[in-house]
Amino acid sequence: MIPHDKHLQIGSLLFEDLDQIDLTGPFEVLSRLPNSTYRLYGKTAAPVRDLKGLRLAPDATLADAHQLDVLHVPGGFGQEALMEDAEVLGWIRQQASGACCMFSVCTGALICGAAGLLKGRRATTHWASFHLLPYFGAIPVNERVVVDGTWVFAAGVTAGIDGALRLAAELRGDEVAQAIQLYMAYAPEPPFDSGTPETAPSPILEQVRRSAQTITTQREQTARRIAAKLGIATDAVDSFGENRGFVGEPAKSFIPR
Amino acid sequence: MIPHDKHLQIGSLLFEDLDQIDLTGPFEVLSRLPNSTYRLYGKTAAPVRDLKGLRLAPDATLADAHQLDVLHVPGGFGQEALMEDAEVLGWIRQQASGACCMFSVCTGALICGAAGLLKGRRATTHWASFHLLPYFGAIPVNERVVVDGTWVFAAGVTAGIDGALRLAAELRGDEVAQAIQLYMAYAPEPPFDSGTPETAPSPILEQVRRSAQTITTQREQTARRIAAKLGIATDAVDSFGENRGFVGEPAKSFIPR
Repeated sequence: MIPHDKHLQIGSLLFEDLDQIDLTGPFEVLSRLPNSTYRLYGKTAAPVRDLKGLRLAPDATLADAHQLDVLHVPGGFGQEALMEDAEVLGWIRQQASGACCMFSVCTGALICGAAGLLKGRRATTHWASFHLLPYFGAIPVNERVVVDGTWVFAAGVTAGIDGALRLAAELRGDEVAQAIQLYMAYAPEPPFDSGTPETAPSPILEQVRRSAQTITTQREQTARRIAAKLGIATDAVDSFGENRGFVGEPAKSFIPR
Repeated sequence: MIPHDKHLQIGSLLFEDLDQIDLTGPFEVLSRLPNSTYRLYGKTAAPVRDLKGLRLAPDATLADAHQLDVLHVPGGFGQEALMEDAEVLGWIRQQASGACCMFSVCTGALICGAAGLLKGRRATTHWASFHLLPYFGAIPVNERVVVDGTWVFAAGVTAGIDGALRLAAELRGDEVAQAIQLYMAYAPEPPFDSGTPETAPSPILEQVRRSAQTITTQREQTARRIAAKLGIATDAVDSFGENRGFVGEPAKSFIPR
């Protein structure tokens, strides 16, 4: 836990074509932490559209940001455009060097990987990109929420809600997280058991894989290029298949710096 | 189901001080329905802030809206300001008269109630406002998602995700909903069992109830005033306590008009 009298500066990276609930799920939780401020940071002050068209406006630009205590990096198809964006990657690196916690959701992990921050780290991401983690030197862990030191990784999309509740508990204690969970009536009842590649009906899995094929291929090519830049040997990586992650030990306790 | 070749016009009411995930949860699901358009409608074209400060921009104004097939009404503290807003209530009534489906999330149900649309309807809303449903002539059903004819009601906040998946299945079939669920990796793992008044630790429940006391009292006063306008006798209602809803029969099948 962080001392309750320390004000927490929390920020999300906002970018064009993000998947909005990668951001809005965690926002729902973390904007309710006591004694904290939550702001969204964009490359410019202009609103962005999420990949299905929702318009979200930043509170400030990257250049305006002071050091954050918690940096949240969401994902979504627009992540690809940031993978070699020196300004964004430099900003993430700089924030990571001073933050007490980094929080990646979905393919936000790939952006953090491109920033060179995942080497040797246990991590997770969306199931369709899970096999790409080793290109960034990460150790893939097939769990919904993975905690590694001061990093919290949530897997795909809606996993950001679970990750944010976990992070809320780490930062401000279990009672705070429980009160937020009760407020937001988070007692989910999915109408189908189709939320993971392991449980979804095979034809559904094949269909969703096919629909993600173009972006997945593009992400693979980008990941290989970045692995070369980061000096990560990709021979062993290339034989690592999708969804063959290690099921890690239960996540370790979180000790903020 | 709606014929697959019928294009669906889906819209959300956007307003100041809504609870953003009441909107963004359903958006994540319903914006992925095949052959559909999803737009956000505000009283004006200006962006609004959700009750914790997230800035969302409308796609159009209420006046610009053609007849929608699906109208989604989110909730949040800002709902109070709409309860006697003739423009908004009239717009909802007009849309409801031609929509094939109405979808209320959280205290969005109170707005629909104020529009006079809940008389005799089985409905649900956020647990802290559940006892107010009878003031609008509704039959409270203590379930996370309630389907009544062409209406779908989701209970508090994150229940909108479950309600939207249910609605997606009703509109476009189970396979479509399952594919969306897999894409969005919706296999929730809440870190605590604190998402309902029944399961939350008592001190947490008391704390959250206390923190909602001011808005709940205000909502009660508004509900009584509106009950009088709607001609609903409130004697029996006043003795109906919070969270003493009827557990209804399993939700009925949904037959769009």
